[in-house]
This record gives sequence, structure tokens and C-alpha cells, in this order.
Amino acid sequence: MIIDCHGHFTTAPAALGQWRERQIAKFEATGARHSPDELRIEDEEIRAAIENGQLKLQRERGTDVTLFSPGAGKMAHHYGDAETSRVWSRVSNDLIARVCGLFPDNFVGVCQLPQSPGDALAESVRASAAELERCVTELGFVGCLLNPDPSDGYWQAPPLTDRVYYPLYEKMAELDVPAMVHVAMSRNPAVQGTCAHYLNGDTSAFMQLCESDLFTDFPTLRLILPHGGGAVPYHWGRYRGMMLDRGRPPLEEALLGNVFFDTCVYHRRGLELLTDIVPSANILFASEMIGAVRSVDPETGHRFDDTLALLNSLDSLGPAEREAIYGGNALRVFPRLARRFAKQEAAR
Amino acid sequence: MIIDCHGHFTTAPAALGQWRERQIAKFEATGARHSPDELRIEDEEIRAAIENGQLKLQRERGTDVTLFSPGAGKMAHHYGDAETSRVWSRVSNDLIARVCGLFPDNFVGVCQLPQSPGDALAESVRASAAELERCVTELGFVGCLLNPDPSDGYWQAPPLTDRVYYPLYEKMAELDVPAMVHVAMSRNPAVQGTCAHYLNGDTSAFMQLCESDLFTDFPTLRLILPHGGGAVPYHWGRYRGMMLDRGRPPLEEALLGNVFFDTCVYHRRGLELLTDIVPSANILFASEMIGAVRSVDPETGHRFDDTLALLNSLDSLGPAEREAIYGGNALRVFPRLARRFAKQEAAR
Repeated sequence: MIIDCHGHFTTAPAALGQWRERQIAKFEATGARHSPDELRIEDEEIRAAIENGQLKLQRERGTDVTLFSPGAGKMAHHYGDAETSRVWSRVSNDLIARVCGLFPDNFVGVCQLPQSPGDALAESVRASAAELERCVTELGFVGCLLNPDPSDGYWQAPPLTDRVYYPLYEKMAELDVPAMVHVAMSRNPAVQGTCAHYLNGDTSAFMQLCESDLFTDFPTLRLILPHGGGAVPYHWGRYRGMMLDRGRPPLEEALLGNVFFDTCVYHRRGLELLTDIVPSANILFASEMIGAVRSVDPETGHRFDDTLALLNSLDSLGPAEREAIYGGNALRVFPRLARRFAKQEAAR
Repeated sequence: MIIDCHGHFTTAPAALGQWRERQIAKFEATGARHSPDELRIEDEEIRAAIENGQLKLQRERGTDVTLFSPGAGKMAHHYGDAETSRVWSRVSNDLIARVCGLFPDNFVGVCQLPQSPGDALAESVRASAAELERCVTELGFVGCLLNPDPSDGYWQAPPLTDRVYYPLYEKMAELDVPAMVHVAMSRNPAVQGTCAHYLNGDTSAFMQLCESDLFTDFPTLRLILPHGGGAVPYHWGRYRGMMLDRGRPPLEEALLGNVFFDTCVYHRRGLELLTDIVPSANILFASEMIGAVRSVDPETGHRFDDTLALLNSLDSLGPAEREAIYGGNALRVFPRLARRFAKQEAAR
């Protein structure tokens, strides 16, 4: 089974974006709240968006299941206040739940969290724990997206290892679900979103983890760094050396029981490095589709984000490694996904 | 000839750091200026710092010349005001000039610029052009460090492609000197310096260049991205795809006439990727010594930053590529360095 652990509903019907625009505009103008009841999306629209988008690509590429979350850039946690983010998260996650309900064999939910920067941070972490619980226990989701920079491009929150985030980690441990550490948009004109802020977010988060003992406090916590871990595997020697310089344990011991990398690296050479450097037990197949890059690579004839075709072309991966990366690891990292499959299997 | 294009005086005598601390403390307390005359460093102290540090490593490794700049983290452009940075840059650059004067065969100067964030940005760019001119014409320097984030970790300046930076680029073009795009410290608790902010700076700057037509306005401008270009070569496919998505020219055409990558990647596998992905004409040998990582890699028996040993171990590099990367490219990118060598040769 091939499990894509990183897919976003970037093709959501236009009504969603329009609702969000009105939510922000209303709040900014008068502080008024825009009701979720104002959003109308028919099942048929969802079907069309998915069948012509993510499902079509799943079929073409031969992947089985996508762990599906709201558009990451669209989380845009800096807008409004904590309540703005809370309602927007519910709206976004409820729509993901409808996708998963319509296509239960192909999509499993991963939720957006109602994070907020600044003074609202602590309150928003508690709201995030509550929304996570709702999504997991009521909607059947199996994980969440955790934004390390809710200020959206200015890094104005403490590191993810700060105790302010502990209520969320307690809830994650209790529910036994992982988080993908994924920034949202960048509103910083110096730091573009998908090709700078996204990768910087992964790199910064990894270094936060290197500098902390978070996993001593939460030994079962599991975090996935998307986009192949930003700059990390390419600079693996730098991190190994830094840990030695500081008298810290090796990366394997300090981090690799809890930290995983996805395969959203859009060329063969990069994926070779990732799979050579990071143990195969710590790599999860992902494409980020439909996401940051949409063109076909003239050098391969495949779309840049068709990471399955790229991985299939690597000679260096043995069958056991391939099985682990393509799906086995996802079942370990997302145990609720494994339980769900077992239940579906038993029902057949 | 082996030219290390990226070395910092991180081993400067303690008096330098003490002077800087007093400069900042005085200004913060009363707005008073601390005079450069208060700094006393004897030649003997400089000799000791260099002979036991960078020169020792040069000899051990068999490199010939280091392009030598002040400690990058210590530039810390966010402190004080434009005048604080102006004086600190002069002090730092004058010290580099003394190193180069004492060891003229081994070190050639690259200057720090008196950048400042916020309202002082435009003024500080003009001051940077003036300091660059002083360093090049009076002190014999051959390049500069350009900080893409003078706010030191919060990215509160426009991108490097903004017209506010044009007076500096005009001066660089006039003097025919390149800049290494190198952030300074990070004062952001969420973004560590050497293993997050440094790499993020390289990645963000590359994407700024992808999004602009800076090199149409300055066709001879040359920028070096240190630390192997941050996340860029590892994500080369992402950048290629993004340029295609946007209908922009290929990276080779849009950037590689003007953008260069150094080899500060501290493991063999990373350097293999760099040298496979980026044309050898765009790679400049560098070690960043003595810099971010100081330990010996138990896997190789060499220090992590001994990138020459790592590059020497790569089978994939032919003699012509090796010659270009080790020194030939530096002579092209730093033409004043080539002229200086020619003069020295003629004098012999």
C-alpha cells in the first residue's frame, strides 16, 4: 500500500476562499464574526474538485491513500484573533471531513489547528488541543499540521519546544497522533512562501528540536518534517558536528526516534541524498500534491511533484526500504491509520 | 592554487569583543559614542590568533589563500543606529586589513558593511557603498559580505532585489567586486544562528533572486551564496519547477551568470549533490573556517569544516572541474584578487 502522507486541498471550491475573505474583511472592519453557516458547498462541487485533481493524480501515479489536510498556506494564522482562527480551522477541517466521507478509501483527514501568534498564543494552543480532539474523535482524523511560525513569516513565537506548546503535545500523546510541522503562508516580502518560508520552517524546526529535550518530556511524540526536511539532510554533517561541539547525543539518538522526513523533494538527485542520509525508518512517502509546483519536468516527462516516479527510479532502495518508505512507516507513525485499515479489512 | 573564499576572523583577540560590548552598552545607556581609539590590539596578538588558528589550518590542509572577513555573526547589524554600524564596520574591517598586512600571502580582505535595519536602511546602504569603496581602494579588499536580514532574525527589510540596495550594487559594479550574501547573528529565539538562520538566509536570498530581474539591471553583479546555498541545491527541482510554473527563464539563464555557491557543506554526500547539480563554473571552494562547527568527524578523522579533504575524496570531479572549484572560479568572481596575484607574480 502506498500512502502519501502530505496532500492539501488546494483545489477546494472557490466558495471556501470567498468565505475566508469575508471572514477576515468583516473582522478587520468591525470586529464582527462571519458565520460558518454562510458557507455553501455542494457534495458535487467537492467531488468535481477531487476527481479532477488529487484523485486523478492518485490513479495516474498508482498511490492508494493520501493523508489530506487543508491548504497549508491558507491556514494563515496571523489574521484576526484566536476566535478567527478557531472558526476558520473548524470550517477547513469540516470540509476535509466531507472529502474523506465522500472518498473513504482514498483520503484520510489531517487537521489544521487554530493557532494564533502573539498574546493569543497560549490560548490558541489550548484551542488547538481541543480542535485536534474533535477532529480525531469525531471526524476520524489521524494527525495534524503544526505551524512553527503562526506570525506567518516573521517568527514571532517561541520555539516549538517551549512549554507553551505542551498542552497540545499532551493531547497528541493521549490521542496517539503525530503532527506534520508545516508553516502557513509568508506575509513577509523578503521571504517567499513555498520556496523559502516552507523550507526555512523545516530547517528552523529541526534545529529547535536539536537544541531541546522535548522528547525526554514526550517520548512518544512524533513530528514529521515536510519538504524532505528543508535544508537538513543536505547539511547533515553540519548538524552532526554541531551536536558533537555541544556535547549533545548523536542525531540518531536525540531525534530519530521521534522525527520523520517526508519525500517532497522534486528531483531524483535530492531524493537519492535523502534516502542515503536518513535511515529508511524515518522517511515517509509524500508528494505535497497538489501543491507548490505543478509543471511537468521536461527532463523526466513526469510532474515535478510525482515523487513516486522519482523514488521508483532509484536503484539504491531495496524492497524492504521501499516498503517502509512507501507505506510501512506511515502505519507506524499514524497508528490510527493502521487501526482504521485493520477495521476496514475486518469488515470486508 | 587553492583559494578559500569564506573565512572569518572568529578568533579575533578578546579586546575586539570587549570594545564592541562597550560600544553597544554606552549607546544603549546614554546614546554616547565609543571611540575606535579605545581599542588596543598589538600585532603580536593578531599573529598569535592567526598562527594558532586559521593559518595553522591552512597549512595542515594545504590551502593557499583565504578571503577573510570579520566574524559574520558578530556583524549584528540590529544594534544601535546607522552610526553604530558604521563605526563597528570600520573597526572590524581595519582589523582584517591588519591581518592581511601581516600575512599578505595567506589572507585577502573581504569587508563587513555598515548595514542597519528599519528606517536607517537606505542611509545605511549609502554608508555601505562608501565603506566598500574605502576597503577596496584604500585597504586592498576584494569583496564584501552583504546581510539580507539586517534585523538579525526577523526579516524586517525588503528583499535584496529592492531598489533601496541599488546604490550598493552600483558601487560593486563600479569597483568590480562581488558580495557574499551572508546573514549575521539571529536574535530570534525560534531561529538559531549557524544551523538555521544562516541556511535560511541563503535559501531566502536565492528565492528573492529567482523572483526578480536584478541581473537585468546589473548584468555584471556577482553574488555568492555561502553554506552550499542553504537548501537550494537539495531542492533544485522545486526551483526549476517554480520557474517553469511562472513562465520565467530556466535557472541557468536567469541566475547562473551571476550567482555562485560555496562548498561549506560538511559531509561528502552533500558535496556530491552540490557538485552534481550546480555547474562547476558556479562553485567556489570554501570552508567557513573557523566557523560554525569545530569538531572532528569521527567518521572521517578530519574536522567537519575540512571541506578540501571531502572534495578531494569525490571521484566524480574531473581535473578541470577541480581546478575551477578550487581556485579558478574565485579568480573570475574576484577579479581584483586575480590582478593582485598577477602583480605579486610580476614583482617576483
